[in-house]
Amino acid sequence: MSGEMDKPLISRRLLDSDGSLAEPPSEAPKVGIVGSGDFARSLAIRLVGSGFNVVVGSRNPKRAARLFPSAVRVALPADAVSSSEVIFVAVFPEHYSSLCALGEQLAGKILVDVSNPTEQEHLQHRQSNAEHLASLFPACTVVKALNVISAWTLQAGPRDGNRQVPICSDHMEAKRTVSELVHAMGFLPVDMGSLVSAREVEAMPLRLLPSWKVPVLLALGLFVCFYIYNFIRDVVQPYVQEGKNKFYKLPVSLVNTTLPCVAYVLLSLVYLPGVLAAVLQLQRGTKYLRFPDWLDHWLQHRKQIGLLSFFCALLHALYSFCLPLRRSHRFDLVNLAVKQVLANKSHLWIEEEVWRMEIYLSLGVLALGTLSLLAITSLPSIANSLNWREFSFVQSGLGLVALVLSTLHTLTYGWTRAFQESRYKFYLPPTFTLTLLVPCVVILARGLLLLPCFSRRLTKIRRGWEKDTIQFVLPADHTQAQKTSQV
Amino acid sequence: MSGEMDKPLISRRLLDSDGSLAEPPSEAPKVGIVGSGDFARSLAIRLVGSGFNVVVGSRNPKRAARLFPSAVRVALPADAVSSSEVIFVAVFPEHYSSLCALGEQLAGKILVDVSNPTEQEHLQHRQSNAEHLASLFPACTVVKALNVISAWTLQAGPRDGNRQVPICSDHMEAKRTVSELVHAMGFLPVDMGSLVSAREVEAMPLRLLPSWKVPVLLALGLFVCFYIYNFIRDVVQPYVQEGKNKFYKLPVSLVNTTLPCVAYVLLSLVYLPGVLAAVLQLQRGTKYLRFPDWLDHWLQHRKQIGLLSFFCALLHALYSFCLPLRRSHRFDLVNLAVKQVLANKSHLWIEEEVWRMEIYLSLGVLALGTLSLLAITSLPSIANSLNWREFSFVQSGLGLVALVLSTLHTLTYGWTRAFQESRYKFYLPPTFTLTLLVPCVVILARGLLLLPCFSRRLTKIRRGWEKDTIQFVLPADHTQAQKTSQV
Amino acid sequence: MSGEMDKPLISRRLLDSDGSLAEPPSEAPKVGIVGSGDFARSLAIRLVGSGFNVVVGSRNPKRAARLFPSAVRVALPADAVSSSEVIFVAVFPEHYSSLCALGEQLAGKILVDVSNPTEQEHLQHRQSNAEHLASLFPACTVVKALNVISAWTLQAGPRDGNRQVPICSDHMEAKRTVSELVHAMGFLPVDMGSLVSAREVEAMPLRLLPSWKVPVLLALGLFVCFYIYNFIRDVVQPYVQEGKNKFYKLPVSLVNTTLPCVAYVLLSLVYLPGVLAAVLQLQRGTKYLRFPDWLDHWLQHRKQIGLLSFFCALLHALYSFCLPLRRSHRFDLVNLAVKQVLANKSHLWIEEEVWRMEIYLSLGVLALGTLSLLAITSLPSIANSLNWREFSFVQSGLGLVALVLSTLHTLTYGWTRAFQESRYKFYLPPTFTLTLLVPCVVILARGLLLLPCFSRRLTKIRRGWEKDTIQFVLPADHTQAQKTSQV
Repeated sequence: MSGEMDKPLISRRLLDSDGSLAEPPSEAPKVGIVGSGDFARSLAIRLVGSGFNVVVGSRNPKRAARLFPSAVRVALPADAVSSSEVIFVAVFPEHYSSLCALGEQLAGKILVDVSNPTEQEHLQHRQSNAEHLASLFPACTVVKALNVISAWTLQAGPRDGNRQVPICSDHMEAKRTVSELVHAMGFLPVDMGSLVSAREVEAMPLRLLPSWKVPVLLALGLFVCFYIYNFIRDVVQPYVQEGKNKFYKLPVSLVNTTLPCVAYVLLSLVYLPGVLAAVLQLQRGTKYLRFPDWLDHWLQHRKQIGLLSFFCALLHALYSFCLPLRRSHRFDLVNLAVKQVLANKSHLWIEEEVWRMEIYLSLGVLALGTLSLLAITSLPSIANSLNWREFSFVQSGLGLVALVLSTLHTLTYGWTRAFQESRYKFYLPPTFTLTLLVPCVVILARGLLLLPCFSRRLTKIRRGWEKDTIQFVLPADHTQAQKTSQV
Repeated sequence: MSGEMDKPLISRRLLDSDGSLAEPPSEAPKVGIVGSGDFARSLAIRLVGSGFNVVVGSRNPKRAARLFPSAVRVALPADAVSSSEVIFVAVFPEHYSSLCALGEQLAGKILVDVSNPTEQEHLQHRQSNAEHLASLFPACTVVKALNVISAWTLQAGPRDGNRQVPICSDHMEAKRTVSELVHAMGFLPVDMGSLVSAREVEAMPLRLLPSWKVPVLLALGLFVCFYIYNFIRDVVQPYVQEGKNKFYKLPVSLVNTTLPCVAYVLLSLVYLPGVLAAVLQLQRGTKYLRFPDWLDHWLQHRKQIGLLSFFCALLHALYSFCLPLRRSHRFDLVNLAVKQVLANKSHLWIEEEVWRMEIYLSLGVLALGTLSLLAITSLPSIANSLNWREFSFVQSGLGLVALVLSTLHTLTYGWTRAFQESRYKFYLPPTFTLTLLVPCVVILARGLLLLPCFSRRLTKIRRGWEKDTIQFVLPADHTQAQKTSQV
Repeated sequence: MSGEMDKPLISRRLLDSDGSLAEPPSEAPKVGIVGSGDFARSLAIRLVGSGFNVVVGSRNPKRAARLFPSAVRVALPADAVSSSEVIFVAVFPEHYSSLCALGEQLAGKILVDVSNPTEQEHLQHRQSNAEHLASLFPACTVVKALNVISAWTLQAGPRDGNRQVPICSDHMEAKRTVSELVHAMGFLPVDMGSLVSAREVEAMPLRLLPSWKVPVLLALGLFVCFYIYNFIRDVVQPYVQEGKNKFYKLPVSLVNTTLPCVAYVLLSLVYLPGVLAAVLQLQRGTKYLRFPDWLDHWLQHRKQIGLLSFFCALLHALYSFCLPLRRSHRFDLVNLAVKQVLANKSHLWIEEEVWRMEIYLSLGVLALGTLSLLAITSLPSIANSLNWREFSFVQSGLGLVALVLSTLHTLTYGWTRAFQESRYKFYLPPTFTLTLLVPCVVILARGLLLLPCFSRRLTKIRRGWEKDTIQFVLPADHTQAQKTSQV
């Protein structure tokens, strides 16, 4: 595809010897544009560059002609419209009604709606711009297309990023015609079905990573909380109670004790909603009841939370690997050696300390390795090559393995510290003990759900069995249950 | 696309003020469902939610009606079938024959087969469920679709993972109708050609990463073997012969000497089958003979073996970076410093040791970097943007570079240890010498194949030349060769 | 999809009990092939294996028959052509004219052009092979297809890499027929529009990562320059002036000081052309003037330069993590400890040194983390799921954050060294000062462009406003400006 991206904006055969745009041969397909704004202009240049015969309709053709390359014919709207089968409507939606005068000339033609609502309009209106246009011109075929492409991209060519152009219409043939046109312009047409989807298509360019907002805020919130907690325990306490200056720990050491807490809690939050959903289904005795909204949203954001957990875990690994690079690490080592010599101790070795660290490092690497497999299978192109069984095997199976490995990593890191009074600085428990709460609940609940009494019932429910259908001898009661199940 | 994933299961305009599903407008397209099981129910809810008029056919409509939302009309099968053009057959394949009574009403309609065989059935039968259905209703148009979607996904909406729905049929028009229906339900229809592909489509949801089984087992087997070998050499031998307790090496150090062995051998196994294939073609003098089955399977699993090799190499890097974090590393360093002081040695420096380590670390990083490029180009979305020339340049060219770099990494790691008697603990050679065998054979063979005498012949063979066609004056002999070539 | 890749080359039901290819049933669709070369042969085998009835047309059928499996019928061209609707033209383009004798039999049929020009031919000719074929047979429908597939891939099946087959033709129906044929052969047909695209399609298999050449050369050039510079400063200078042997630094230490320079400069080169483009637009007062070629190419290669920058940064991280693993690091540490003991100093701690290193390590990790997000969103499958707003938010917004973080990383690394005379070895300034030039210019310019006076004007220009259109009362001057704007 990169070959296509090198495609020059304006194909060379359309350039005169003096470099100006030559008029395309008269047998080239004709395309009309209504409007003479920036989008119309960029569209005209791109269309001419792709080998089309372009006629622009403007109320003041003489003045507008100066804005377009000479290869573009600028005429009155009625003229522009009558000479071509496909007409791009590049005027603002609020002026659509001003085109009604052209109704007769437009009858039977393909109108391409390229407009976008503002964020506010999109939230207010029920009807899409394209459907509005279609209602004004019932004798025309309306196709929604190119709204995701900016005038700038039309001008500069589809250089990076998304080259896909969603297209929708109620008429197959018109959709196909516009698809080929879009393809000829160097974009990738994507069929989005009938015109009802226009609202969805119009919402596309307004999105700004909506599914990431809550997860990112959650991760940031957790980071700030844990960072402050660690700051008090690791820096303030030694300073206040022992007069030691440990502020140098702020940039690396504190960040590195905070990141794993965030990663670990986030990972458990990926699996908590699934557990809650299962408990809810068990309790309700049916799967045909919608989950409450907060749970529904939570279930939908699991992928993002999981990826943020992986990102934090990765940063944690990078920070950890940086630890021995620090000058402070070097100084500590040398000072320890000097102390040993001065104390006349010849051999330093604490077997328990050695074992603890070897084990938790190994578990940490394995947890990160498992998480990375999860992250990779979240890539759209990989996820699309997996069937449901494979996807849930990796995401649910491997995910739980990662959660268990992380828990063991945390436990071996903590070792017996949770039970040492000296570790409770300012009476605050060690940070790792705080992080263990949610993950342990999730693992425990998952374990309980594996018990036959629960798992059998759950399997039955997920296959469509319902507690209340047994009671269909009680019609009154049932009707009520049925109603709720449709919410 | 994430925008679409946020699409609520049931569009809001279909919800009454009290939250129950409203009946869609009567002009909405009509769809029939035969069957009242869990899949039928989920399908009905999804279809109603997507704006369709749904009629369910059940032998006991009164009882079945309670299982469906009120927006769904439940009727006798004959009624349900006669009122709509597209009918989903949501009954078990073994009951298909029971629908024969509806033959007359079904004539000319589109039947959608959504069934899946069990794993056992799939292995036994030759005919797909869809083809079976088509043979029972020759007057109908059968389309295979939606079998990869579970009732649960239909219910919950296509939240994560694969949204693709493979569709196949012998009738273009019917396929298109069902494609649009599937699209309207929020899935991505994928055209799989004619109904002959139904068997393939039915096999899809049964897969569980089939191409990974053998490579993963191979990697695990290699890991276990090398781990035990290293355990004997690095832990048992010092314990038995020198009385030293080195068991703390089990979690990190031993894993870290085992992983590179596995990664290195796996990498060489990616390139060995290509060499064998070339040798076989040279020997046979033709490319038109099929390779033996084992070689064929091996050639097909190269990608998976390569990715596992990269994964092991990555874990090896992570473990290596963990080494200086270990408590044992700190103790060793301090003890070395103390020893130096006590021995009154002021400057410690072994030039050869320094050089050896600098070189093999650098080579290791380069090998990992090269492997990571290979891994990235294995991603479906990247591989699809490369042409054959580019793909083989990266996979074959860079792959060999990685193999050579890994070999040099291993050799500089080993240095002169292979020739020191003290390294042969329990008479066992150092582990790295064992791993060198296969890679060196591959590199040597690749080198030999570059010699003009071989490379020219191989090029000729791969362009279609055959040893035996020169001898076509000997028809008897040739016929035999030709026969074998078709195996 | 991996399931399809396991599809055997020749489906088993087509194999006789003795393993030879059985003739497919006579009702199987018929396909003709003209030519008996290697591609024709591989194509015939694949088609027979996919269940088609294949007739090959050869001038010497008797002799050619020996080259094809017995399931393929070999006949005279005229016979072969008349019996099937789709005919693959597998002869060299220079012999296309020799087929003119078949004109009558070919009339109304679909001709599939599978040919590829050589690199030289492609550069010379203006017309594609497919268009040439179409001009010779105006009564036929020409479809371009399968040219990206080698005879070897046809033979071995689409095992790895790209399975996409671009198809183009002026006739929708013919394109669809060939698409289904290609699909049945196990490939993925991709619609490339009308036959005009044939030139583009024919160029595809000739590509060898064209967009990577310049960026890779640039990165290599930068690497060599910085490596030599560092070599002189860090190795030659100590050797010449102090007699110290530091050659052991060549493999790791020097590479590790060179890589970040390359990564940092490359990253700034990603954002420099955007700044230049903005300045140019501000100066010209219009966006409708094409950028000079060098700037245009630069803008198009930003993605590749950015990815190379990330790759260098990643290698830099890996090399850095290797530093404490080196034997030289261990020796240095021990020697430092010994020196401390001998000097009777009990506590070693330089607060400023500690802070400097903690800060720049932390900034480095954050910069790498940000860069990795950029690299991930460059993956085609991720980029395709982002809209323009999201893509530019990540690529432009996060990219600048990464650049600022890298600059801070460099500045804290450098600290006060730029102002210490002792650091100017051989009068050469420290390397990091050299790298700061371009990035600082970019950051400064970006900051300036945020000033209201510039940003407002730029926004206006990018919305289509032009300096010269205000002056349309001066027609002469305007016409000239208009002319240039079409270049």
